Amino acid sequence: MSNLKYALNPRSIAIVGASDQINKIGGRPLHYLAKFGFQGKVYPINPARPEVQGVKSFAGLDALPEVPDMVCVAVAGDNAERTVIQCAEMGVKVALVMASGFSESDPVNGAAAEQRMIAAGRKTGMRIFGPNMQGLANFGSGAIASFSTMFLEMPPEDGPVAILSQSGAMSVVPYGLLRQRGIGVRHTHATGNDADVSVAELSTEVAKDPNVKLLLLYLEGMPDPHFLAETAAIARERNLPVLALKSGRTAAGAIAAASHTGALATEDRVVDAFFEHHGIYRVKDVEGLVESAELFLKGWKPKGRNLVAISNSGAVCVLSADAASNAGMPMAKLALATREGLGKILPSFATTTNPIDITAALLSNSGLFSDILPVIAKDAAADAFLIGVPVAGQGYDVPRFARDSAAFAAETGKPLVVAAPQPSVAQAFAEQGLATFATESAAIRALDGYLGQNELAARLAASGARSTYRAAESAAQEGVTLNEAESLAIAEKAGIPVAKYRLCQSAAECVEAWRAIGGPVAVKACSRDIPHKSEYGLVKLGVNSEAEISALFETMTTTVAEKKASFDGVIVAAMAKGQREFMIGAHRDPVFGPVVAVGDGGKYIEALGDVRLLIPPFSASDVERALRSLRIAPLLDGVRGDPPLDIAAFGDLAAKVGALMLDAKLKIASIDLNPVMVFARGEGCVIADALVVQQA
Amino acid sequence: MSNLKYALNPRSIAIVGASDQINKIGGRPLHYLAKFGFQGKVYPINPARPEVQGVKSFAGLDALPEVPDMVCVAVAGDNAERTVIQCAEMGVKVALVMASGFSESDPVNGAAAEQRMIAAGRKTGMRIFGPNMQGLANFGSGAIASFSTMFLEMPPEDGPVAILSQSGAMSVVPYGLLRQRGIGVRHTHATGNDADVSVAELSTEVAKDPNVKLLLLYLEGMPDPHFLAETAAIARERNLPVLALKSGRTAAGAIAAASHTGALATEDRVVDAFFEHHGIYRVKDVEGLVESAELFLKGWKPKGRNLVAISNSGAVCVLSADAASNAGMPMAKLALATREGLGKILPSFATTTNPIDITAALLSNSGLFSDILPVIAKDAAADAFLIGVPVAGQGYDVPRFARDSAAFAAETGKPLVVAAPQPSVAQAFAEQGLATFATESAAIRALDGYLGQNELAARLAASGARSTYRAAESAAQEGVTLNEAESLAIAEKAGIPVAKYRLCQSAAECVEAWRAIGGPVAVKACSRDIPHKSEYGLVKLGVNSEAEISALFETMTTTVAEKKASFDGVIVAAMAKGQREFMIGAHRDPVFGPVVAVGDGGKYIEALGDVRLLIPPFSASDVERALRSLRIAPLLDGVRGDPPLDIAAFGDLAAKVGALMLDAKLKIASIDLNPVMVFARGEGCVIADALVVQQA
Repeated sequence: MSNLKYALNPRSIAIVGASDQINKIGGRPLHYLAKFGFQGKVYPINPARPEVQGVKSFAGLDALPEVPDMVCVAVAGDNAERTVIQCAEMGVKVALVMASGFSESDPVNGAAAEQRMIAAGRKTGMRIFGPNMQGLANFGSGAIASFSTMFLEMPPEDGPVAILSQSGAMSVVPYGLLRQRGIGVRHTHATGNDADVSVAELSTEVAKDPNVKLLLLYLEGMPDPHFLAETAAIARERNLPVLALKSGRTAAGAIAAASHTGALATEDRVVDAFFEHHGIYRVKDVEGLVESAELFLKGWKPKGRNLVAISNSGAVCVLSADAASNAGMPMAKLALATREGLGKILPSFATTTNPIDITAALLSNSGLFSDILPVIAKDAAADAFLIGVPVAGQGYDVPRFARDSAAFAAETGKPLVVAAPQPSVAQAFAEQGLATFATESAAIRALDGYLGQNELAARLAASGARSTYRAAESAAQEGVTLNEAESLAIAEKAGIPVAKYRLCQSAAECVEAWRAIGGPVAVKACSRDIPHKSEYGLVKLGVNSEAEISALFETMTTTVAEKKASFDGVIVAAMAKGQREFMIGAHRDPVFGPVVAVGDGGKYIEALGDVRLLIPPFSASDVERALRSLRIAPLLDGVRGDPPLDIAAFGDLAAKVGALMLDAKLKIASIDLNPVMVFARGEGCVIADALVVQQA
Repeated sequence: MSNLKYALNPRSIAIVGASDQINKIGGRPLHYLAKFGFQGKVYPINPARPEVQGVKSFAGLDALPEVPDMVCVAVAGDNAERTVIQCAEMGVKVALVMASGFSESDPVNGAAAEQRMIAAGRKTGMRIFGPNMQGLANFGSGAIASFSTMFLEMPPEDGPVAILSQSGAMSVVPYGLLRQRGIGVRHTHATGNDADVSVAELSTEVAKDPNVKLLLLYLEGMPDPHFLAETAAIARERNLPVLALKSGRTAAGAIAAASHTGALATEDRVVDAFFEHHGIYRVKDVEGLVESAELFLKGWKPKGRNLVAISNSGAVCVLSADAASNAGMPMAKLALATREGLGKILPSFATTTNPIDITAALLSNSGLFSDILPVIAKDAAADAFLIGVPVAGQGYDVPRFARDSAAFAAETGKPLVVAAPQPSVAQAFAEQGLATFATESAAIRALDGYLGQNELAARLAASGARSTYRAAESAAQEGVTLNEAESLAIAEKAGIPVAKYRLCQSAAECVEAWRAIGGPVAVKACSRDIPHKSEYGLVKLGVNSEAEISALFETMTTTVAEKKASFDGVIVAAMAKGQREFMIGAHRDPVFGPVVAVGDGGKYIEALGDVRLLIPPFSASDVERALRSLRIAPLLDGVRGDPPLDIAAFGDLAAKVGALMLDAKLKIASIDLNPVMVFARGEGCVIADALVVQQA
């Protein structure tokens, strides 16, 4: 395949600008390659001296005994550009340009130099990282072509986690936090300006490393979503959890991101929808990237969210129930047999309901843990466990509690977290291989993140293979606005239920339509030039007489003519009154392609924003899940005597809109259906208006 | 005053059941009193031996040379009860009952024993703590009458924080977390069953300790709100921040709390309103109790929430802006002079907008911090600062950054937090007295908590002295339902605007009322027996003819008679159509007394729950703040062409409802005003219906 694989596993590395000083950019990689056991060839390039850091040095790349797989370019400016071009010409596989001063700071000359380097690389297939990059670090092979300070400060240890980031800091901050927790990290890559290889493209390669069990991404922009989609597909295939921290979530953050990397601000909810669609689990901060990491490495197969909490403190039981409830984790309802079993062991005043308060009796009876855990282990209602030990130490057999807990965890094979604020107690549990946190809140947050990713993965697995990423090559928003009749026709053809209507060209046809439809009707002028017709009095509801209809045809015709707008007829339509009005809107995002919004309808859609975004294709059940996360979700099943709504029908309708957006032949730029009238369950839903814009 | 003060500062302490083994309940207090330097007299009581832990022991309380101020009762069952009664009789000031097995586990005999002890104490003024208590610990005096394991594990240091809790665990978990952060703790009290002195009553005493600068409360139930109100009043007087963690926030948590302490479940939003009213800052978990602690001890006087973030990493700048924005902390807009000043110092590609990215140039120029900070210090737009150092170490002059930051903090006198994930870097900043956190998210959370408490305190100071707590002695919800006319009359008398109406006793009167009001009217039967009259067809809107009105009078009279309900007349009222409909509901909470709900009106009030609760008295601006936290807040200022709403008038109306609930003479149990029709700004608001229940 491509030369990209040499980025992770080079057989030889040359460092242009190699320095004896390990705190210089050209000194650090050389230092690390020796220190962390790189087994390949290392070639310092420094014309001024025979050896650098004790390694034989060469005067130039052309003096090397072989063409190196990888070259670290640790010289600046023109020198860097010349070196990169030389690398390309001699057949180097991968060049890492650490120097800054390119497009990130000089959008004219710096950007041009970047483009010249890329052009040189393209000619020979050499891949370029950076410029302005901190470097690549593979602790599996010891190929640490990076100048990060962090590896001096926090000793590395090969392990199952990979971290990728454009930003140098955000590649090593998660590294540092994971290492503090004793978790091994294999890959820590910071790719800089991403002029050629982007962090997203590199992630496709890292996702294939069979030793990687957890992939963490820090993203500011979303420049290469198709590579992220590819990474997600590879990861789904091998059950590799991918967590992404996409910053610039807020307006303030997006402004900061734009000034940092020039990242294009994308509507954040579309990013959410993209990640959700591809099964990338989005976290909201650095803590989110690392707090659940240990849990992903346990090999559990979680079945649900029902939690059992066990503590020697009633207060911890209450706080755990609060935290779990807020995280959407119900307290498991213990079986009668479990409760009876507990009742035989625990003191009479202890609680045998869940959360299980074993009380301070633990101080006088260190065997309580080993006695009760096997009873709980048998209960099928438990999906996950929290063990809270707020206070222990002298007088308590802490090592025994930890051993008992570990044996219990091994027996159940279910997720288990420990909350222990005392470092000594936490250490005893951690030494038994248990995931341990300072507080029950922190433990629940970690568990929630872990379960959330698993649920996302399970949903994607259940819905079958996702389509690969759809390029946004036809993202144009501008186009031809269709008139209402044309728009409705497209919807009807796609199987979307439309309230009975007729497009009429005369007053007589209008009257005939009214008679055919029966009862009061809506009368609407049809003109592709007037999409918002109600603003001009071109919509009249509840019309129910021949005279009124005939008169309306005439006045509407006149009004449209006065506006010098195209007159495409008058629509006579059945009046539909749904149980509740929803909205569906679809458009093409310039980065992510088709996006469909579903949500509460009415006048205040923009102001209240009670909508969710989905990336097609999606199913009716995806739509239902989206609706159930709306603020109006409590109304879906009927309240105050209202019947439950036909959400399944609405989901089906929305899925059809998604399919319309994916139909390349139709070339639809956007669709607005508002309102979508939803009836009581079993009675379906219907649209009475539609506005379709076709790409020019 | 009372003997309660001896709970904190006893001059002598006797321990009944004193043990040589320091891991026994009777061993720990004795051990701690010696270890932590208690200067008063200590009297172990143990008839079996001449001394305990090297201290002269006595055969019984009656063998003591004096009556001790405090007695720790570390014996069990009947023995405990006998000891307490003996203590009371001999004039002991305070008895601490550590034994369990009372009301918490035996609601019949245990509770009765508790009551007998209290009765004995009452006779002589002796105050009783517990039973089932872990103990009281005052590290200022060394009076550690507690058997907590934590003080063996985490060495105490006297300091400015006080922690009070019923639960033993939750008294020492915050203690442990604060001690890990190097923060000194003076008081750590766990009061157990609260049979006599409750944690709330004890807090009134602790709040008076001038050395206490931060008061932390863990609460499960809310048994003594008047004492909490008193504590809050004392704290407001001396600017003492009070933070409360009230658990059982969720349904699952409330169930767990009920089984733990038998705590009465109170609607959690009322608890919120109570804390807000009295200026107690509520946090949601243990982390919330401790994460801002250091900030409260700095003596800052925060003016606002505009943040300036400074980092050597652009990514940290973006993440800080995201975190700040989510916490409602805008990025301060730097003055032009500041930006120009920064531009002269920073590299050309650095950002001189806020957040300020000083870039990796810091590695080559350790003076950048000292150069830029004075420029930023002059900018009045900044209210608070975050300094993010994601990576540093070898090659960086970290001690200098820390010194520069500390000098900057001292110069500005404004809140400053540091985010540094590397322990070595964090330590360098912490050693300079700066509040340091692992991540920007954690730093922002701490700052948000600190600012939130300050804002609450400032609001209370601005609104003048709050009324003290109003006892819920007249909390009865049951009572006499007034008819609509009587209800409207009460509202009118209170100055609440009511749509024009007349109560009529004949068809002729109805017609006359219609003529007087003018235009279409609402016609409603008035009966105190039929509060929900629309369900029975007893409300008719848009009536606008003599014939219709006369007929309605007759049919309504008949309908009411058929229901065998009291017929109090027919109301003819002007039709009002507000710009938007809101609701106001007031009732008496059995724990907290009068509570007023304000929020969005309409059919789905219960299902959507877009309401806030306030404790009267409150002002129109309190109401506006409540409305601005609703989900419909974006609509208040007018969207989609709507005019802004007259929120001031609504606030005034709601404040009048609060005043009605406080008027003892009126004896109102509840008031429901729904809808309250709010017009465009300047046009006021009006009610058209009211339902008042008077206490029987």
